[in-house]
Amino acid sequence: MFDISAELEQILKTMRAFVDEELIPLEADFLANGFTAVEPRLREKRQKVKALGLWLPQIPQAYGGLGLSLFAHGLVSRELGRTPLGHYAFNCQAPDAGNMEILIEHGTPEQKETFLMPLLRGEVRSCFSMTEPEHAGSNPVMMSTTAVKEGDSYIIDGHKWFTSAADGAAFAVVMAVTDPHHDNKYARASQIIVPLDTAGFELVRNIPVMGERGDGWASHAEVRYHEVRVPQSYLLGAEGAGFAIAQQRLGPGRIHHCMRWLGISERAFDLMCRYACQRELTPGKSLAEQGTIQAWVAECRAEMNAATLMVLDTAVKIDKQGQYAARDDISLIKFHVAGVLQRVLDRALQVHGGLGMTDDTPIAWWYRHERAARIYDGPDEVHKWSVARRILDGYR
Amino acid sequence: MFDISAELEQILKTMRAFVDEELIPLEADFLANGFTAVEPRLREKRQKVKALGLWLPQIPQAYGGLGLSLFAHGLVSRELGRTPLGHYAFNCQAPDAGNMEILIEHGTPEQKETFLMPLLRGEVRSCFSMTEPEHAGSNPVMMSTTAVKEGDSYIIDGHKWFTSAADGAAFAVVMAVTDPHHDNKYARASQIIVPLDTAGFELVRNIPVMGERGDGWASHAEVRYHEVRVPQSYLLGAEGAGFAIAQQRLGPGRIHHCMRWLGISERAFDLMCRYACQRELTPGKSLAEQGTIQAWVAECRAEMNAATLMVLDTAVKIDKQGQYAARDDISLIKFHVAGVLQRVLDRALQVHGGLGMTDDTPIAWWYRHERAARIYDGPDEVHKWSVARRILDGYR
Amino acid sequence: MFDISAELEQILKTMRAFVDEELIPLEADFLANGFTAVEPRLREKRQKVKALGLWLPQIPQAYGGLGLSLFAHGLVSRELGRTPLGHYAFNCQAPDAGNMEILIEHGTPEQKETFLMPLLRGEVRSCFSMTEPEHAGSNPVMMSTTAVKEGDSYIIDGHKWFTSAADGAAFAVVMAVTDPHHDNKYARASQIIVPLDTAGFELVRNIPVMGERGDGWASHAEVRYHEVRVPQSYLLGAEGAGFAIAQQRLGPGRIHHCMRWLGISERAFDLMCRYACQRELTPGKSLAEQGTIQAWVAECRAEMNAATLMVLDTAVKIDKQGQYAARDDISLIKFHVAGVLQRVLDRALQVHGGLGMTDDTPIAWWYRHERAARIYDGPDEVHKWSVARRILDGYR
Amino acid sequence: MFDISAELEQILKTMRAFVDEELIPLEADFLANGFTAVEPRLREKRQKVKALGLWLPQIPQAYGGLGLSLFAHGLVSRELGRTPLGHYAFNCQAPDAGNMEILIEHGTPEQKETFLMPLLRGEVRSCFSMTEPEHAGSNPVMMSTTAVKEGDSYIIDGHKWFTSAADGAAFAVVMAVTDPHHDNKYARASQIIVPLDTAGFELVRNIPVMGERGDGWASHAEVRYHEVRVPQSYLLGAEGAGFAIAQQRLGPGRIHHCMRWLGISERAFDLMCRYACQRELTPGKSLAEQGTIQAWVAECRAEMNAATLMVLDTAVKIDKQGQYAARDDISLIKFHVAGVLQRVLDRALQVHGGLGMTDDTPIAWWYRHERAARIYDGPDEVHKWSVARRILDGYR
Repeated sequence: MFDISAELEQILKTMRAFVDEELIPLEADFLANGFTAVEPRLREKRQKVKALGLWLPQIPQAYGGLGLSLFAHGLVSRELGRTPLGHYAFNCQAPDAGNMEILIEHGTPEQKETFLMPLLRGEVRSCFSMTEPEHAGSNPVMMSTTAVKEGDSYIIDGHKWFTSAADGAAFAVVMAVTDPHHDNKYARASQIIVPLDTAGFELVRNIPVMGERGDGWASHAEVRYHEVRVPQSYLLGAEGAGFAIAQQRLGPGRIHHCMRWLGISERAFDLMCRYACQRELTPGKSLAEQGTIQAWVAECRAEMNAATLMVLDTAVKIDKQGQYAARDDISLIKFHVAGVLQRVLDRALQVHGGLGMTDDTPIAWWYRHERAARIYDGPDEVHKWSVARRILDGYR
Repeated sequence: MFDISAELEQILKTMRAFVDEELIPLEADFLANGFTAVEPRLREKRQKVKALGLWLPQIPQAYGGLGLSLFAHGLVSRELGRTPLGHYAFNCQAPDAGNMEILIEHGTPEQKETFLMPLLRGEVRSCFSMTEPEHAGSNPVMMSTTAVKEGDSYIIDGHKWFTSAADGAAFAVVMAVTDPHHDNKYARASQIIVPLDTAGFELVRNIPVMGERGDGWASHAEVRYHEVRVPQSYLLGAEGAGFAIAQQRLGPGRIHHCMRWLGISERAFDLMCRYACQRELTPGKSLAEQGTIQAWVAECRAEMNAATLMVLDTAVKIDKQGQYAARDDISLIKFHVAGVLQRVLDRALQVHGGLGMTDDTPIAWWYRHERAARIYDGPDEVHKWSVARRILDGYR
Repeated sequence: MFDISAELEQILKTMRAFVDEELIPLEADFLANGFTAVEPRLREKRQKVKALGLWLPQIPQAYGGLGLSLFAHGLVSRELGRTPLGHYAFNCQAPDAGNMEILIEHGTPEQKETFLMPLLRGEVRSCFSMTEPEHAGSNPVMMSTTAVKEGDSYIIDGHKWFTSAADGAAFAVVMAVTDPHHDNKYARASQIIVPLDTAGFELVRNIPVMGERGDGWASHAEVRYHEVRVPQSYLLGAEGAGFAIAQQRLGPGRIHHCMRWLGISERAFDLMCRYACQRELTPGKSLAEQGTIQAWVAECRAEMNAATLMVLDTAVKIDKQGQYAARDDISLIKFHVAGVLQRVLDRALQVHGGLGMTDDTPIAWWYRHERAARIYDGPDEVHKWSVARRILDGYR
Repeated sequence: MFDISAELEQILKTMRAFVDEELIPLEADFLANGFTAVEPRLREKRQKVKALGLWLPQIPQAYGGLGLSLFAHGLVSRELGRTPLGHYAFNCQAPDAGNMEILIEHGTPEQKETFLMPLLRGEVRSCFSMTEPEHAGSNPVMMSTTAVKEGDSYIIDGHKWFTSAADGAAFAVVMAVTDPHHDNKYARASQIIVPLDTAGFELVRNIPVMGERGDGWASHAEVRYHEVRVPQSYLLGAEGAGFAIAQQRLGPGRIHHCMRWLGISERAFDLMCRYACQRELTPGKSLAEQGTIQAWVAECRAEMNAATLMVLDTAVKIDKQGQYAARDDISLIKFHVAGVLQRVLDRALQVHGGLGMTDDTPIAWWYRHERAARIYDGPDEVHKWSVARRILDGYR
């Protein structure tokens, strides 16, 4: 139905093989020993990716990327999502990908030189510092972090958490209130770049998430900004444009995430089918012959097919008509695909029995960590309420 | 995402208006008094449809239709599905549409002249007589009806039910075993045309389905064939090709049904949203302001969008690559879309409260009669098992 | 776990046999031809019930009943619920049972003589006229029907619907606003007895519910009160006590309904299991051997067992501690058991395939009519919200 | 409904306070640093438990326990289940509790002296070694571990996993095939006690389960038996009685587990309600005011109430009529309550948003580790199939 060019087909095929041959073999070590343990080997893999000409698939060619459309990158994201290490190897992982995007769009020449270029080259990592423990993430205008001007600096004070990948990052993009009394509450905050070696920045802890503190890129930090002073030239975009810019990264980010979730689903489905055929319930009779398992296989396949089309359709809509036209779709795919992901993972785990609980497959890792898919970027419920209100408004 | 030509857009728009202005006003009478009560007015509507040049949208132009692709007719089917009378008005209703299709494909010139042409002109109706009360419909090779040759006739004996629309039909296409001992059990039966005024045909009863016997086109008959004698020239296609031909009508029929279900879903969704905005729970506060209702609206919208893309994608695949290539998809959409339909209807009914139980909206009609969507053409479970087995075979 | 006395065991056993032998044989006629068609035979059955000494199981012995506790009558209600005609045969059917209860509790000697006694003897039927089409039934204080005093009469004006069993009833208990400006909005309405042969009463129609207008006891009327004049002595209880009395009938009524639903579930479960064993999917292999069907059987059994205990536990709590102590439980069982009922019916129907859609079993009747279980006496959602608010208040 | 004696009430109240005041304060350390980190403090808590006279609630008084009925211990298990450390503190944790039970029932005086008494005193821990990685746990008769007689010894060879709590245990009860060709496949295996310091025992690894290897009691080991030699006097019960004895521990164990799951559910529910009231979505408006959250609260409460009654009812049935009479119930509660647990945890986590993903509450720990509730002791699906087959056999 969707036209996939021969060139894109080739890219996807190469990526698929790369994931299978180069990255999946690293999974066991990553699951057992963490990100830092595999980082050196990932550096080599990144060199191979560059050599293959597939580095930065989502980034415009002018900045050294492949310049794929959102639709095409959606398909890429699904391929890479089949392993937890896929996006990182191609330098299109969150939160760096989002930061690259807004730096390209809104960065000054100096910001691009200082922050964007090393990021694009894969020399440094970055993070995005928005959510605060004291306020519901689903209502971002409730925010306590402030940035006050003094001389030609901003002085930032605040407390954030789920600043993912802060551990070892070179800089953060920080959301802070710059105009607390602005009539339009969406115009109160700004995005400001903060190098993490600035005095006053404190990485309080890598939050233990589902039993794991994680490390390096694979971590979620609680951080504090104690009178952190940065030059005003580190303001990203206009003052007060913090939410507008954050909004902007949501659309493409949503496609990336949803297709990544579908990549996870494909892999889990694959593992489930393989194991069902292999595992004998009684001699000569495998799990695959059970009607219940068969029903799960069919239901997962149907849900995954429908969800994939829905996300790709949204990507095409954004590509052609822009984010605003697709804003309902962007909300709908969030919760719908997160639900599909969870159901597929749950069933894949169940088919594996005791093995499914272990880290001998990546299913348990996704089961626990991707539970967050229904929470991050706004809990499902908030998306449901907001899209429904827009729909219902059409009936009044 | 899908390219819809300007011409097709226009057809759909005209049909939508026709449904709203000409057919929905007949619904109350149909729900209260049955098909026969509205048949005269439907005859007039059919004349208008012909005058609009929209008669037989699914039929090749050579036979007087619009010659739409399966994809385009899918979209048509969704528009017409918004009322129980839509397909009938355009002469693309089951089971006639399926019979037209196989007569065009397999009919002899004499059969076309005698049976197909009056059907295309809308002068007569027909039925398809396959399911037997004594055997699970999901396993069609278990069949007791026989057709035995004698001279140049077939003599048919058997007992069928769910011979839908037999009441008032001119002829049936009957599945009967012609070669009971053929090694290939799928080659044992043939399709034979039986004019219903032939001696020995008995319409035992219109089966009371969900409290209604129905009448005319809107009925499901139990019938018996007592030594019914028809000329051998009434054999449709080759002897023993009964299942092969039946299979053939399944793919397009599945698209028609699924898109019709999505048309029903759209209408129910529309009624739900409208009523939620209108109905006050407390003065000044409508149902639409309840978080639970909002969640339902969002979930229904997401499921309907995803399902629609899935069916259209399958239609395009059949259009381009044929039924065989799409056979998994054809199974997947069956149960998946039937599930979406049921969930949407259930919630639309619930939002309407007591009103939802009444026939003052069409929701209750669909709620009870389209419960069969999960049963007819093979119960969901059978489709799940069979598609899963094909998928799992790829992993052995 | 629950102690069931030998005497109660005997009652239940007799009732079970009576349902099987005397009432189930009437079902087919009832489903095909309606209540009036079977009424004469039901009259005979009622004589037999009286002869067995099982008439009015829920009514105090002083009024000629068995005087069963709510717990014991709950078990009775489950036995009788196995057929749509069970409660009627024993004169414990809604809405008469509720009316008997409040007449016993609040009726004057005159009201008891005139209205209660014929009802207890089974000579007349009654109805309860509360819900209005213009207002959400879930918020009963929104009510337009008024009763204004004039001389020693009330003059009642209003429009009601879902006045179930009004067709052929001798009298209605009508909820009407008597003090529209009372500060306490729950003290604005009163219950007034209206003989249905009073001038000004209009039975507008038996509402077509799920395709059936029904008749006699098995019907739901839309009615109008056009300046209906009744003596003030027909006021039931105190003026302004309308809601308080209505509330009172809710607790026991809830037990009756929930246990009736569980009786329906038991019967549907029974039919499902029987048919699954009987129906061959392939020669020699029945539906009962399918893992999917087995999972349904187990899940239904588990849900029914848990739900039954929950309702009986609530009944005991009301018996011992009164309705107020059990008010959370009374809300919880409403939506929980309605959900169990719907899932059991849905699966029982699905197992029956095409047959499940027909009126050849009672499943389709329950499937469509008991869809209302999630709506009447307050939609599930309203109960969820209200019980949750009480629970959450404990955490503030 | 259930009669709870004043004495039992007092025990439960004391335990509840003990959990709240003594054990919940240890949770954070346990979640962050593992079992070994809190073990010394748990030792002190165990002394307090003994001082309170509540040690070994499930064990007969003759062996120094409280001698509670299964019903009473079910209620205890729910109280203790509110924290992951509850059962351990009272020495009624799996797998030791099961081992105590079978040693009491089947142990020789020597076995009791050597193995049981230290266990009862809490001086040592034990494990149960049954499941093998090469075979589906749901079909225990597929077993490769063997015990061959030589002289007066058994020589055991085999490979097991999910030998929970082996790390640091004094001995294992090992299931091994002693008579591989016995006609009755359930009579092929025996239970043999193996002190873990015996030569040839290898603890291969603590399996990483959901990202955690765990330690001490809170671990799941993969172990190998390499020609492990133990005296034949370590045979537990009769030779060939392995499955019969294993079966025996299932009934009570099921009650313990299910009530523990309900304790977890209660705690998670409590945390959910508290947080919903506390967390503001917008200033002055908490999560608790959202209809969706309210619906979850009500649905969880209903499911938990119904499930609790179901388990207690089963406990009473076992107490009064024995395990065989209750065998269907024992299967039904397994999958039903595991499902309730998972739904409650899922919603409690979702209400907590990002916080729910962290180890700052115990919800995430249960979410990941109690996913196994649907798997251990036989996956839900196997229980469904087996109970359904018994039910359906009654209809043939």
